[in-house]
Amino acid sequence: MHISELTHPNQLHGLSIRQLEDIAQQIREKHLETIAATGGHLGPGLGVVELTIALYNTLDLEQDKVIWDVGHQAYPHKMLTGRYHDFHTLRQKDGIAGYLKRSENKFDHFGAGHASTSISAGLGMALARDAKGENFKVVSVIGDGALTGGMALEAINHAGHLPNTNLMVVLNDNEMSISPNVGAISRYLNKVRLSDPIQFLTGNIEEQFKHFPFFGDGENLSPEMRNLKEAMKRLAMPKVGAVIEELGFTYFGPVDGHNIDELINTFQKAHKVKGPVFVHVVTVKGKGYSMAEKDQVGYHAQSPFNLTTGKPIPSNKPKPPSYSKVFAHTLTTLAENDPKIIGITAAMATGTGLDKLQQKLPKQYIDVGIAEQHAVTLAAGLACEGMTPVAAIYSTFLQRAYDQIIHDVCIQKIPVFFCLDRAGIVGADGPTHQGMYDIAYLRCIPNLVIMAPKDEAELQRMTVTGIKHKESAIAMRYPRGNGLGVPLAEEGWEEIPIGKGEILRNGDDVLLVGYGSMVNNAMQTAEILSEHGVEATVINARFVKPLDTELIVPLAEKIGKVVTLEEGCIMGGFGSAVAEALIDHNVNVPVKRIGVPDILVDHATPAQSFADLGLTSPQIAERVLNTFFSDKPEMAVKS
Amino acid sequence: MHISELTHPNQLHGLSIRQLEDIAQQIREKHLETIAATGGHLGPGLGVVELTIALYNTLDLEQDKVIWDVGHQAYPHKMLTGRYHDFHTLRQKDGIAGYLKRSENKFDHFGAGHASTSISAGLGMALARDAKGENFKVVSVIGDGALTGGMALEAINHAGHLPNTNLMVVLNDNEMSISPNVGAISRYLNKVRLSDPIQFLTGNIEEQFKHFPFFGDGENLSPEMRNLKEAMKRLAMPKVGAVIEELGFTYFGPVDGHNIDELINTFQKAHKVKGPVFVHVVTVKGKGYSMAEKDQVGYHAQSPFNLTTGKPIPSNKPKPPSYSKVFAHTLTTLAENDPKIIGITAAMATGTGLDKLQQKLPKQYIDVGIAEQHAVTLAAGLACEGMTPVAAIYSTFLQRAYDQIIHDVCIQKIPVFFCLDRAGIVGADGPTHQGMYDIAYLRCIPNLVIMAPKDEAELQRMTVTGIKHKESAIAMRYPRGNGLGVPLAEEGWEEIPIGKGEILRNGDDVLLVGYGSMVNNAMQTAEILSEHGVEATVINARFVKPLDTELIVPLAEKIGKVVTLEEGCIMGGFGSAVAEALIDHNVNVPVKRIGVPDILVDHATPAQSFADLGLTSPQIAERVLNTFFSDKPEMAVKS
Repeated sequence: MHISELTHPNQLHGLSIRQLEDIAQQIREKHLETIAATGGHLGPGLGVVELTIALYNTLDLEQDKVIWDVGHQAYPHKMLTGRYHDFHTLRQKDGIAGYLKRSENKFDHFGAGHASTSISAGLGMALARDAKGENFKVVSVIGDGALTGGMALEAINHAGHLPNTNLMVVLNDNEMSISPNVGAISRYLNKVRLSDPIQFLTGNIEEQFKHFPFFGDGENLSPEMRNLKEAMKRLAMPKVGAVIEELGFTYFGPVDGHNIDELINTFQKAHKVKGPVFVHVVTVKGKGYSMAEKDQVGYHAQSPFNLTTGKPIPSNKPKPPSYSKVFAHTLTTLAENDPKIIGITAAMATGTGLDKLQQKLPKQYIDVGIAEQHAVTLAAGLACEGMTPVAAIYSTFLQRAYDQIIHDVCIQKIPVFFCLDRAGIVGADGPTHQGMYDIAYLRCIPNLVIMAPKDEAELQRMTVTGIKHKESAIAMRYPRGNGLGVPLAEEGWEEIPIGKGEILRNGDDVLLVGYGSMVNNAMQTAEILSEHGVEATVINARFVKPLDTELIVPLAEKIGKVVTLEEGCIMGGFGSAVAEALIDHNVNVPVKRIGVPDILVDHATPAQSFADLGLTSPQIAERVLNTFFSDKPEMAVKS
Repeated sequence: MHISELTHPNQLHGLSIRQLEDIAQQIREKHLETIAATGGHLGPGLGVVELTIALYNTLDLEQDKVIWDVGHQAYPHKMLTGRYHDFHTLRQKDGIAGYLKRSENKFDHFGAGHASTSISAGLGMALARDAKGENFKVVSVIGDGALTGGMALEAINHAGHLPNTNLMVVLNDNEMSISPNVGAISRYLNKVRLSDPIQFLTGNIEEQFKHFPFFGDGENLSPEMRNLKEAMKRLAMPKVGAVIEELGFTYFGPVDGHNIDELINTFQKAHKVKGPVFVHVVTVKGKGYSMAEKDQVGYHAQSPFNLTTGKPIPSNKPKPPSYSKVFAHTLTTLAENDPKIIGITAAMATGTGLDKLQQKLPKQYIDVGIAEQHAVTLAAGLACEGMTPVAAIYSTFLQRAYDQIIHDVCIQKIPVFFCLDRAGIVGADGPTHQGMYDIAYLRCIPNLVIMAPKDEAELQRMTVTGIKHKESAIAMRYPRGNGLGVPLAEEGWEEIPIGKGEILRNGDDVLLVGYGSMVNNAMQTAEILSEHGVEATVINARFVKPLDTELIVPLAEKIGKVVTLEEGCIMGGFGSAVAEALIDHNVNVPVKRIGVPDILVDHATPAQSFADLGLTSPQIAERVLNTFFSDKPEMAVKS
C-alpha cells in the first residue's frame, strides 16, 4: 500500500507489521526529500515515524485524540492525516504549517509551537470527556526535552493525582531537546532506558548478599536457595520507572521506538489500564538518515540541503553575519576579559549562538534546559552575588518567564541583561514564534531599560552597554536573520548612553522615528520620500524605555507630522510610547504608527510577511504620503 | 535570654536547646500578638518557628545565605534579623513588609511574594559563589505547596544535575499551600512523612514471604533466619525519599519540624554533604495556636482578630460584599444551570471565592495547585471539548501564565474566560502583589476581549458576558476589596454587548473616560469639577479591547479635552489605548492620563496608596483643573 492512498489514519488498522514498516519507510523518504528541499525540522520527525504509526494503529482517530507536544515532531502525523500530497508546501506561505494548527486539520487537536504544553491540554480534554460522560482516549506525546519545562511537570503532578481520569502520556525519549538534555530528570530517564529489569543494580545486591554466609558461592546453591536469591534480587531492585509510578502513573517501558510490533503490543496493553498511564518510548532523533543520527544537534532543523552529502545548499551570494552570530561573538569576546559574565540559555545554545561561548568558556555558560522561568530567576540569583548574567532567550520564549522578569528581577532592581533574539517577524515558524509582543509586555515594567540596535554594529555597542549597566535590569531585542552588512569592529566597542537616541537625517516635512530593525526601513523610506519632494528627519530611537523625549518631542512639535516604525505589535508598542510622550508633553500633532497590527502573522518568508503587513520601505513611503500629503497628488506613489 | 536582646542571628549559636525553645515561645507570642492587631499571614510563620531557629543555629549568617520562598513564612526570620522591635509595624505604610525585601534588611537575600522561586535564586547564588571561589552555604526554604509550581521543579531538575554544587533545599512540609495541597507530589510527600523506615510496606512484604516455605511461621524461625528475614524486608523497602534521591539530591528526613534538637542534628549532618541536599521537615501550619492548627485555611492570613476567641474584630459599619464574593455567587448561580461551566483556581480557592463553587458544585471545580501555567492550558483543553472554563486568577499571578495565554489560548482563538481578581492596588501585600500590569500585558495580544466592570452589579453582567462569549478568549479584571454597595439582582443578569461603553454624565468642558474601578472616581471627580464650574462628560469604557472608539473618538473631538482614568500602570495601559485610538483617527486633542505611574507601589492601605498616587477624586479634580483650566484661576482647588 502506498501512503498516498491513505485518506484517513484509521486505514492503518488493517495493515500487517510488514505493511506498516513499509509505510514508515515511505514517510521517511517523503520527510527527507521535503526537508531537503524546503528546510525545516529534520531530526524530530524521523525519530517518531514508527511511534506515530504504531500509536495510530491502536487508536480510533475518529474519536480518540492525540496531542502532540511541540508541533515539529508531528510531521509523520501530518502525512498520515491527509496532508501527504501537500507536504511539499511545508513552512511556505499558504502551505502546510511547520507546527500544529487546529485550523489546518481536524486531527490537530491542539496547536503547539512551544514545548511542554501537551499534558495540560490533554488533561483538560480528558476531564471534559469525563464531565460529558463521553468515552474516547486522550494521548499526549511529549519529548524528554519538553519534560524539563515546569509546566509539563505541573501537569504530571495534577494528572498523577487523578486515578480515575484516563490519560496516556507517551514519552518520546531521544535524550535531546534541541541540544542534548540537561537535568536530573533526563539523567534519571537515561538510567531507566539503559536498564534491564533483571540486571539493574544486581552488582550492588550481590555485594550485600555476601554478608549472608549461607548463600555462599552462588554456584553451589541448592535450587531452592538459588530461587530465593533471585527473588530477593527482584525484591531489592528499584522498579524501573519507580519515580513515575510514585507520581501516580502506571509505567510501561522502556520500549524500542523503532520496533512497530513491540510498540503496538505496549500501546494495546497500556490502553487497558485505568487512570494515568506513562509509556516510555526510546527513539533515535534523526533515525534512518545516518548524517542526522550522527549530528543530532546540527540536523534538528535545517535550511535546504543536499540529501546525498548532507550539506546545506549554498546561497547565491555571500550574506552578512546573522545578528545571533554577531551577538555571540561580541559576548564571547567580552566574557574572555570578564569572568563575571555568565551566558544563560534555555536549551537554545545553537539558536542564540551561545554554543560559541560554551566552546570557548564553558565555565561561563549555563544551559538550564527548556526552563525559561528558572533561567531568569537563576540569573537574578547570580546577579545578587555580583555576577553579570546574560539571559539570551528568544522574544517568544521570554513570554514564559514574564512573572520572573517582573517579580524576581525588576521589582528588586537586579541587573540582569536580557537578550531577546528573534524579536519581530520570524518567517517560516509562524504565529507561535513571532517575536511580536516583547516591546509591549516589557515596557510596562518599572526598573527596566529596553533598547534595540539599528544594525549589527550597534548591537555590539548595546551588548557592552547591557553588560555595564548595573542600576537596573536591561533588555535588548534584535531580529532573526542577517545583519545589514555594516562594518564591524573586532573589539573596543563603545557604550551607548542610556536613553539617548540619535538623528540620522534631517528634513522639515515629516519626522520618522524608527526603533531597532526598522531604523533601516526609515532611512530607505526617507530616500523614497525625498524623490517625491518630501524631506524627512529620521531618528534612531535606540531606547523605548527610557524614551529620548528630549530629542523626539521638540522635533515632533517643530515638524508637526510624526511616523513611528517598529517590528512589533503597534498595540502598546513603540509607537504608543512615542504617542504617550507627545500627549504628556502636550504636543498634539498627528502621529502615524507603522508596525504589526493586532493580528496573528502566519508562516511565510520574512520578506513575504513584511510585504503582507505593508512594512517594506516603498509601502511605508506610500502610507506616509497618503496619510500626510494626500493634498499633494503630485507626491502620490504606487508601491 | 529575651529575643529583644538578639541583635544578630548568630547570637543563637551559643544557646542551649532549652534557651532556643524559650526564644521560640517568645517569637510565637509576638507573632500572634502582632497579627491579631495588624492582620497578616498567621499560620505559615507559626509553623516554621523552630525550623528557623534551628537552621540559624547551624549557620553563620554573616556569610551563609538563606533564601525563603514566599516571604509570608519568614516572619520568624524577620524577628531574628533585627526587626523584632519594629515588628508591630508589619504590613503598614512605611513599616515592615509582609514579604521579603532586599532593600529592607541585609538578611533578606532575595525578595519573595510569589511562590516557587527560592531554589532558582539559591542555585544562582551557589553557582556565583563557586565561580568566585568563595565558600558559604546557600539554603533555600520552600513549602510543599510551592513545590507544585513548575518553576521549583525546573530548579530541582537543574540542581540535581550538579553534583558538585553545594545547595541545601529545606522542605517546609505542612501539607498545605493556602488550601490543602493537590497533586501527586504532595501525595508522595505525605506517604513519606507518614512512613517509618522499618514498618513501611511491611505488610506487603510479609505476604510475599509466605511463598517461601522455609520461613514458615515467623515465631519458629532460628535467629539466623529471623535476621535474614528482617534484612530482606529492609532490602525490599522503597527507600524513604527515593524520588528525591533519584533526582540527584541527598535526602534527609522526615524530621519533626517542632523538635529543635532533632532539627539541629539533621541540619548539621546535612551541611556536611557535598552537592545538593534535601531536608524534609514536617511542620504544622499554625503550630501553637490551637484555632489556627484546627482551621489551617481560615488562619492562613487574617484580618485583625481577637486572640482569645479567634474571631475577626468586627468593623464599625457594615460593608458591601467584596467583588470576589459577588463574582463567586454569580458564577456559582450560573454554573448551577450550566454543567459546562468549570471554575479553575491555582491554589486560591478562598481568595477568589471559588470555595463557594467547590462546596456547591464540586464536579465543576478544579484546583490545580500553585500552577498557573498548567491552569491556563488545562482551561484551553477543556474549552476545546466544549466546556466553559473560567480561570479565576489574581492579576499578579496571571503573569505566571503569560505565554500560555498567548500561545495556548489566544493564538488558537479558544474561548477561555479569565477572571482577574485583585486587579489594581492591593494594599498591604505590596509591590509583589499589585495588580498593576494586566491591562498593558493583555492588551497587545490578538483575539482577546478585555473588560472591567464599574461596580459589582456590572461585574455580574460581565460574568454572564464572559461565559457566553465563544468567539475568542475574554478577560475581566476587578479590584480587591468591597464593592460600591449598589443594588444587586439575584439572577437574570443581562449580557453587555462586546466593545460597547456607556455615557454616564454629560458636560461640554472635559471628557472623563474611566475604566473599571476608576469609573466611580470619574463620577466623583465630575461632581467636584462641577462645583468649580467645569462640566464633564463621563464615559464608562467597560472594554479596553475592543475599545468603543465610536463612542469615545467623536466625543473627544467635540469636547477637545480628554482625561483617562485607570487603576493600573499608565505605561501601555488604558490611557494609551485611548491615545492610540485618537491619533489613529487623527483627533489630535490634549489627553491627560491618570493612573499608576512607572514606579513600584509599596505596601500601605489602599486608601493611602491612592492618596500617594494622586488617585483620589479631589486629587484628580485638581490635576484636571491644573492641566486644562489653569488659565481660569477661579477654578483652582486645593485637595
